Amino acid sequence: MSNAPEGFRGKLCNAIERSRSFLCVGLDPDPARFPDVVRGDVGAFLREVVSATQDLVCAYKPNIAFYEALGERGWRVLKDTVEAIPDSIPVILDAKRGDIGNTAKMYAKAYFKDLGVDAVTVNPYMGFDTIEPFLRYGAAFVLCITTNPSAGDFQFLQAEGKPLYLWVAERAVEWARSGEVGLVTGATRPETIRKVREVAPCLPLLIPGVGAQKGDLEASVREGLDGEGRGVIVNVSRAVLYASSGPDFAEAARRVAMGFVERMRKVEIREI
Amino acid sequence: MSNAPEGFRGKLCNAIERSRSFLCVGLDPDPARFPDVVRGDVGAFLREVVSATQDLVCAYKPNIAFYEALGERGWRVLKDTVEAIPDSIPVILDAKRGDIGNTAKMYAKAYFKDLGVDAVTVNPYMGFDTIEPFLRYGAAFVLCITTNPSAGDFQFLQAEGKPLYLWVAERAVEWARSGEVGLVTGATRPETIRKVREVAPCLPLLIPGVGAQKGDLEASVREGLDGEGRGVIVNVSRAVLYASSGPDFAEAARRVAMGFVERMRKVEIREI
Repeated sequence: MSNAPEGFRGKLCNAIERSRSFLCVGLDPDPARFPDVVRGDVGAFLREVVSATQDLVCAYKPNIAFYEALGERGWRVLKDTVEAIPDSIPVILDAKRGDIGNTAKMYAKAYFKDLGVDAVTVNPYMGFDTIEPFLRYGAAFVLCITTNPSAGDFQFLQAEGKPLYLWVAERAVEWARSGEVGLVTGATRPETIRKVREVAPCLPLLIPGVGAQKGDLEASVREGLDGEGRGVIVNVSRAVLYASSGPDFAEAARRVAMGFVERMRKVEIREI
Repeated sequence: MSNAPEGFRGKLCNAIERSRSFLCVGLDPDPARFPDVVRGDVGAFLREVVSATQDLVCAYKPNIAFYEALGERGWRVLKDTVEAIPDSIPVILDAKRGDIGNTAKMYAKAYFKDLGVDAVTVNPYMGFDTIEPFLRYGAAFVLCITTNPSAGDFQFLQAEGKPLYLWVAERAVEWARSGEVGLVTGATRPETIRKVREVAPCLPLLIPGVGAQKGDLEASVREGLDGEGRGVIVNVSRAVLYASSGPDFAEAARRVAMGFVERMRKVEIREI
């Protein structure tokens, strides 16, 4: 028996310590943006990016939509990509799923058992019994504040004295008694990350939107850190993956990733 | 040029007229429940059920989770299943997707272009810009009231004077100016279907939950019908698909489907 912390959180903590980084690289293969040199070989492209960045990251996040868009070969490419990631680095599958228990169980088995990922992003609209089946196999990151312009259509509605996204954060804290739960809090609205951190002091936060979507990296990390100066996972997808369209794409990905890591290392922990 | 109504709605109207039925059969293959006689041949099982029920339905609804759970062969089985459905019957892919525009476009292309479905179910939590990419290719059914026990975690929260699900219904009416939009309104709470119908008099309603989930078929149809006595699609999955575990599974599926159709044909239109 080893003394290492168990589950997703243990694996994440170890990966953060080892890499001295909160960076997560999003593995979203878009054939329209591939460097010429890879000639459409999706798997090889992703393996090279993983190989060039693995000492700089605390997690990888493949978005399943980009693999579904590959059609019949998509599942195989996704599975190979997950397998190419070292076991010590947690894999968060960005799937944003949410369905009744019977169906959620199907998704959970496919992702945790067949693909072998460590965590999945989920949508809260249908409530806890659509999240719980995922927690039996691994961790779930619940959408809370998203980075898109229409996020405000519902997430900022005032419901009985507080915005919907804070209802989600509070419920997620309750759900975390049943398993490993985190929240997705986009970097495009850092002031909301502070509010989420107040009601959910211990949940890990997955923060997308600092790359191509121009969210505020430093403010998001500062507001998102937990009491131990941990608990944030900052995702960058396109800015790293497509850093260069030339044959130097892997070195360019590493250089851009390193730039994000260095900026994060300079963020001072906010006084709490 | 034909004079037939175009798009999803036209296809649906024609299918309702022809079948004199609001029944949609959910095609959710669960290998654990297959009749022995099919020996794990998912494709053959689904084709037989389609063949035995196609004159009784106005739509089919495969839930993509069950195909993902098949692993690498899942996409092929799903594509073959969609191809086995006559072109005149609309296919609603139950995917409950919702992601930022860039990603939603990937999903939309995969489902409408590669698989060739007519409509997709989507999750409203992230707002309109996550729905809109689907509308460029086909119809989207937005989750409004779901059938699961935890639906009330957020859907019934009172936000500025009305429950969240009515906010979703109202927004969906606005979104319907940009394309073909419907709502998912579960049969386990028929009184909420009435409220949705009041704010969304013209949107088609996809009503799951009348089979294994024991929702109220008659009340749901009565409350859901639009001013023309149309506009409902009542889904039954497990009760039809697994009507018998013997070699008579296809005839049994037809018999159970016919039972639902006959009950729906007896529903009188509510006075409006």
